[in-house]
Amino acid sequence: MGTIILSETLGTMLLTLLGCGVVANHLLTNTKGRGGGFLMVNFGWGIAVFAGVYVAAKSGAHLNPAVTLGILASGADEYAAGVDITVLNTIAYFIGEFLGGFLGGVLCWLAYRQHFDQHDNAAEKLGVFSTGPQYRNVTWNLVTEVIATFVLVFVILFFAGTPSGLGPLAVAMLVVGIGASLGGPTGYAINPARDMGPRLAHLVVPIKGKGSSDWGYSWIPVVGPIVGGVVAGLVAMLVKNAIG
Amino acid sequence: MGTIILSETLGTMLLTLLGCGVVANHLLTNTKGRGGGFLMVNFGWGIAVFAGVYVAAKSGAHLNPAVTLGILASGADEYAAGVDITVLNTIAYFIGEFLGGFLGGVLCWLAYRQHFDQHDNAAEKLGVFSTGPQYRNVTWNLVTEVIATFVLVFVILFFAGTPSGLGPLAVAMLVVGIGASLGGPTGYAINPARDMGPRLAHLVVPIKGKGSSDWGYSWIPVVGPIVGGVVAGLVAMLVKNAIG
Amino acid sequence: MGTIILSETLGTMLLTLLGCGVVANHLLTNTKGRGGGFLMVNFGWGIAVFAGVYVAAKSGAHLNPAVTLGILASGADEYAAGVDITVLNTIAYFIGEFLGGFLGGVLCWLAYRQHFDQHDNAAEKLGVFSTGPQYRNVTWNLVTEVIATFVLVFVILFFAGTPSGLGPLAVAMLVVGIGASLGGPTGYAINPARDMGPRLAHLVVPIKGKGSSDWGYSWIPVVGPIVGGVVAGLVAMLVKNAIG
Amino acid sequence: MGTIILSETLGTMLLTLLGCGVVANHLLTNTKGRGGGFLMVNFGWGIAVFAGVYVAAKSGAHLNPAVTLGILASGADEYAAGVDITVLNTIAYFIGEFLGGFLGGVLCWLAYRQHFDQHDNAAEKLGVFSTGPQYRNVTWNLVTEVIATFVLVFVILFFAGTPSGLGPLAVAMLVVGIGASLGGPTGYAINPARDMGPRLAHLVVPIKGKGSSDWGYSWIPVVGPIVGGVVAGLVAMLVKNAIG
Repeated sequence: MGTIILSETLGTMLLTLLGCGVVANHLLTNTKGRGGGFLMVNFGWGIAVFAGVYVAAKSGAHLNPAVTLGILASGADEYAAGVDITVLNTIAYFIGEFLGGFLGGVLCWLAYRQHFDQHDNAAEKLGVFSTGPQYRNVTWNLVTEVIATFVLVFVILFFAGTPSGLGPLAVAMLVVGIGASLGGPTGYAINPARDMGPRLAHLVVPIKGKGSSDWGYSWIPVVGPIVGGVVAGLVAMLVKNAIG
Repeated sequence: MGTIILSETLGTMLLTLLGCGVVANHLLTNTKGRGGGFLMVNFGWGIAVFAGVYVAAKSGAHLNPAVTLGILASGADEYAAGVDITVLNTIAYFIGEFLGGFLGGVLCWLAYRQHFDQHDNAAEKLGVFSTGPQYRNVTWNLVTEVIATFVLVFVILFFAGTPSGLGPLAVAMLVVGIGASLGGPTGYAINPARDMGPRLAHLVVPIKGKGSSDWGYSWIPVVGPIVGGVVAGLVAMLVKNAIG
Repeated sequence: MGTIILSETLGTMLLTLLGCGVVANHLLTNTKGRGGGFLMVNFGWGIAVFAGVYVAAKSGAHLNPAVTLGILASGADEYAAGVDITVLNTIAYFIGEFLGGFLGGVLCWLAYRQHFDQHDNAAEKLGVFSTGPQYRNVTWNLVTEVIATFVLVFVILFFAGTPSGLGPLAVAMLVVGIGASLGGPTGYAINPARDMGPRLAHLVVPIKGKGSSDWGYSWIPVVGPIVGGVVAGLVAMLVKNAIG
Repeated sequence: MGTIILSETLGTMLLTLLGCGVVANHLLTNTKGRGGGFLMVNFGWGIAVFAGVYVAAKSGAHLNPAVTLGILASGADEYAAGVDITVLNTIAYFIGEFLGGFLGGVLCWLAYRQHFDQHDNAAEKLGVFSTGPQYRNVTWNLVTEVIATFVLVFVILFFAGTPSGLGPLAVAMLVVGIGASLGGPTGYAINPARDMGPRLAHLVVPIKGKGSSDWGYSWIPVVGPIVGGVVAGLVAMLVKNAIG
């Protein structure tokens, strides 16, 4: 369990440090990348996953409870090479993922400290840490997060079937694409730890002029990705049973 | 046949979900990626192919009738490892490709439901699903689609001759490039299923304030890519006969 | 010789079709990618090389006289697997490279025919085909082209020393980077065939409202890249002799 | 020692030539890529590393004193295949890195000579060569550079644990991402040689209308990256001891 927790904590910490960082660079006052565009944000998050995967390779680099649960639902034999699927290990993944998500949010705040201090818009400050919808609607926000996370986990579960030398670049490119294609309505949490971890950091850290952490919305980027990940795992199992 | 249909349906569904999705993000009202730029659209479609190829690897991931027919015209031995070139298999590819294209269009609408509802421009709503020309002209629109699809299929048919570890990334990058370079006049259908499938979705789905599905243009992104793909197959065969 | 000519013609044709195409998309009136930005242009040219390399793999995919001469200057044993370094073969490379460059320019015009017809700026029309400097100055334009081509050929000559599975993606990324980094002053010809071939197409093709093909500048993107490529070959030879 | 110096000089020269070049293209008057955006700058620097790594493969392509010291701190057995960790070799790396950084800055000035001459803003001229903070503050500027360099060196030290065929593309993508995500406050030196080398070039080269080389800030992009790299090396050692 210790290995899983340490590995996933470090990997998810890098994920949310770099991921929240690119949003800070795009949004906050007077950064060098201010207004850098959505494609820059997409590459930032994609490479955030890329970095996290290298660091957490020992534990299979889930970095995301939706991936952990998707693997579980897919009927896989193990979580990673040599890591059995047990209740304790599942909990260890969750601990590492959320803890890493929290720590990455804190580090992002430190790296952009002065820009947070100078920025006036509290909602955008929260937007660096956590996702929020363009139109707030429980049903449709959930639908978007379910679909986007389904794509993430479903494609990941097929990676093993196509030999390539891409290593962590495959999931990085996939995340770039999901962001560009399905990030428009809700900002593509597609990962409960990526959203809740930094949201807790937003709550705890003494950010100057911060507003609400928007707990009213916070359950959607948890439930949506979990549903999407589990459905992806089940469908992947059915498809593989059907066509080998 | 069942394997081909299921595999190609899933792959092409992901292709048009992510591909139409990035156009929705770029075009529709109040998305996070609104005005994200043509390069974002190009990466979105390229990674859409990337995702689809992993999922449809079992059937060789044609995802495109122009690719199926290009392989046929090139004198290849099989459609994919263990998949013979027969009339029934060809029909199975077509069924999967168009059905997947349709389903991806429906899913894209669900993911961007509220943005479709708020958007006022009916032509742009159709533009999320299907391609349309900047200057409507049968001859020149066909020429552009023939050339662009020729490039796609011709290069794909040479992939096997250059060992690399890129796997599905090779075709993804190629699609990014074709979009950036040859997408200017007609929006690069380069795939009858990618255009007709979502166009049928546009017809069927109850999109608020939608207009015509523009059937007058719809045959061009079918005929152009088929001609381009078949010519690519024939030329590739001639070239390989000439220079091994 | 026939194999070299056919292979290099096809590869360089794809290179300039896609390369000139992305400039057309960026510059010409009413394209879907109009104003898509310099990074889009850089990716367009990078992937243009990517596509050309696959198609011309049989002849080692020089696609560029500066690469051919750089390999010659580096003291290599052969131009490609099984292709001896002889005067006739060298001429065969040049024929294929310039012929392909010309044909790609013609195809680009066909693909963007209506946008050329509608566009008013003759200098920008030429800019689709060939490079031109921001500040016209023989010395400094040459310096820029020499440096940029030196980087291209020098790095290519070191590719073999670092095993990777990138295949043609390595040179594609390199070209993206050279464009972004060194394309600012002269538009990075870095390839006599890429510039002279399409310039001849501009001369020959009946483009509506076209102006001069700017032959006064045309020798700079020939001489600069040749000097840069040869110097790169010589320096690479010296370095490898010094440090193995 | 000679091999290390030559190899690292060439690699770091390419790194700063292409890296400073993309900033010149983005910032200076009347370039083709003017205002190309922060993502273009990020790709330019990423591919700058990519090119440098190929050329300096013989010496392990540190290209960065923070990488050299991070490897040292991590308890590695050697600096590169066949290169022992000794005081003299360490000095050889430093000489090559700073000398290469200087030479790349000079070459960048030559490539953009006319644009430097025409540009009016002395601070932006320096910005082509060296980094500067958006808000000048010793503590927070150091914090940002420490965090960003930690990410760079920490992830690099985990590369070996995940087999892939990416070769130099892995570090290139990582640098693209660090720039996009953590480059906002200080311009991501993350490398003392990348900052000090070109800063010396700025001092020495007779740039028209140049201003101060800002030596008051110059120690921060030296100390910050060194601290970040050493901490990354130590933490990587601890983590690997803990979880194998």
